[in-house]
Amino acid sequence: MASSALHIDALPRTLELVLVDDTRAELVFVDQRKLPYELVFARAHTWVEVVDAIKTLGIRGAPAIGVAGAAAMTLWVCEVARACTLMSLAELARVADAVVSARPTAVNLAWGVQQVVDALSPLMAAGASAQALVHAAYTCVKDLEAADEAANRALGAHGAALLPQGARVLTHCNAGSLATVYYGTALGVIYTAAEQGNIKRVYADETRPVGQGARLTAWELAQAGVPCTLICDNMAASLMARGEIDAVVVGADRIAVNGDTANKIGTYGLAVLAHHHYIPLYVAAPLSTIDKDTATGADIPIEERTATEVLPQPIVGVDVYNPAFDVTPAHLITAIITEQGVMKPPFLGA
Amino acid sequence: MASSALHIDALPRTLELVLVDDTRAELVFVDQRKLPYELVFARAHTWVEVVDAIKTLGIRGAPAIGVAGAAAMTLWVCEVARACTLMSLAELARVADAVVSARPTAVNLAWGVQQVVDALSPLMAAGASAQALVHAAYTCVKDLEAADEAANRALGAHGAALLPQGARVLTHCNAGSLATVYYGTALGVIYTAAEQGNIKRVYADETRPVGQGARLTAWELAQAGVPCTLICDNMAASLMARGEIDAVVVGADRIAVNGDTANKIGTYGLAVLAHHHYIPLYVAAPLSTIDKDTATGADIPIEERTATEVLPQPIVGVDVYNPAFDVTPAHLITAIITEQGVMKPPFLGA
Repeated sequence: MASSALHIDALPRTLELVLVDDTRAELVFVDQRKLPYELVFARAHTWVEVVDAIKTLGIRGAPAIGVAGAAAMTLWVCEVARACTLMSLAELARVADAVVSARPTAVNLAWGVQQVVDALSPLMAAGASAQALVHAAYTCVKDLEAADEAANRALGAHGAALLPQGARVLTHCNAGSLATVYYGTALGVIYTAAEQGNIKRVYADETRPVGQGARLTAWELAQAGVPCTLICDNMAASLMARGEIDAVVVGADRIAVNGDTANKIGTYGLAVLAHHHYIPLYVAAPLSTIDKDTATGADIPIEERTATEVLPQPIVGVDVYNPAFDVTPAHLITAIITEQGVMKPPFLGA
Repeated sequence: MASSALHIDALPRTLELVLVDDTRAELVFVDQRKLPYELVFARAHTWVEVVDAIKTLGIRGAPAIGVAGAAAMTLWVCEVARACTLMSLAELARVADAVVSARPTAVNLAWGVQQVVDALSPLMAAGASAQALVHAAYTCVKDLEAADEAANRALGAHGAALLPQGARVLTHCNAGSLATVYYGTALGVIYTAAEQGNIKRVYADETRPVGQGARLTAWELAQAGVPCTLICDNMAASLMARGEIDAVVVGADRIAVNGDTANKIGTYGLAVLAHHHYIPLYVAAPLSTIDKDTATGADIPIEERTATEVLPQPIVGVDVYNPAFDVTPAHLITAIITEQGVMKPPFLGA
């Protein structure tokens, strides 16, 4: 009994690499700095423009910046091809490092960049033409785009099966279609459940300081026709105490081998609150979010961002602390929902 | 070893009733809508102006609105005296109700108004002159002003004794000098401890949606020379997990007989988080905050405020939920700090 008010198809594709000619491409993306009051599609033509968009949150969300990182590498290949200079492995590594360092916490960025590096390296060693390199990089990105949507739809189906009928779900930040190429991770679970007629309401934490929950999650849920209530981050506990939350579903920026999960600041607090109220907390993320080189959450670097995000105009004598992420220990996570199925504790390395 | 950088005396008095002549008074108050970038002293000459200032948060904080409510009643008495009309007990009750209903959660407002009603009623029954009524109401407010500061200094001393050396304290909203006539409740504890050289740092939750922590607490701590770091509400859990918080100290808007405490939205979540991390949570409030007519937290009305506080510009299709307070159950409160001493559970009615 899917609700007739649903119109998930109305969601825009978040980013898409378009090949213009043999040595020219552009990354078309929803500029997330403009939402929710303007839906603007921006176009990046150079790898530096993509890095800038990632740093300034024009493109954000772990899965989306993974694909954007791969797209940045492709735009670099195009730039070199147009300049008719030799493409060196050293230069490839240098640009890859620069793209990866745009944001340190999400592992997907490094993973996406590495996909292109892996596609290009053997071709470069074999002396492939510039056009062949552009083609290989472009194809890699298009594969990542398709794989992202497919993974989200698959994990959405796995996750929807975990929710009760008429579920009232709390989410934090934006792990929605806007955080991916299309459809979303945490919101992918919600969209699938909504299509099954199973979502009563979604509560979206506004997610200070950048407001991804207010500007992005609430906007895209409304676009999709899912009933949505925006709250301040500090109101979640009160709703839980009143029995108005059946499940918490969030995304992830990096998952350690033992299941510890870095996600938007505030996720850890929600996990403690959910635990206290006997509410399940689900992490929805593609397998590419699991970093096999990170044993535990203690090994995940936490990006600290500028004070002006919290306090646009400084107050004399007042310091500001602005970590972008926190780490939720595995024991507070009910399950991790991936495209290949649901993992419950103990996780791999625990 | 008090820090020489402290200058708590630099804090302004938050509100002060001034008698201009026999039938004329004005309430001078720090307009809290203008902080932190402008320190503006506003003047209210009618009871309706005071009610408006309370509703729009020009004056806020449970103890401060208690005294402001009493001042509003005094300005009404002045207005009637100037109009040379008869002051009726029915009209007194009507105005008292209107003042009390400006904000429903804090019990101090009703309590402050009642002090003036109690002072006036026998005089009115005895046919006292308008001037005598003005004098009685004015004297009552001045007594409340003095009692507020005395209570805060007393509870500050009781509370400071609970903090460890070099304490790192988290607070929420503003239970500071700006929430009282002078000196503060939760921040009164911190100021006293700071004068004893015992405060390493105060972390102030910004306190969405109105930002009392950012605009008021951080500002007044900086004015007073107390080291202060502003964080978003959703960052507190992360600091607790890292062992950077020794105690949480908050104020209260109403305390039920069993110890359940209504305070600014987000307090309950902090109490759960503090409990999870074995960090004490202290409520600092004058005894007038305890409502003997409220048995448990379930009996406390929770004010819901306008959506525009959360989302100034609506997003089509997005609902907003904006409760101004939540209730922390007594079992999550380590102690209640009052001017007469420290109460630990089980509280009176438990």
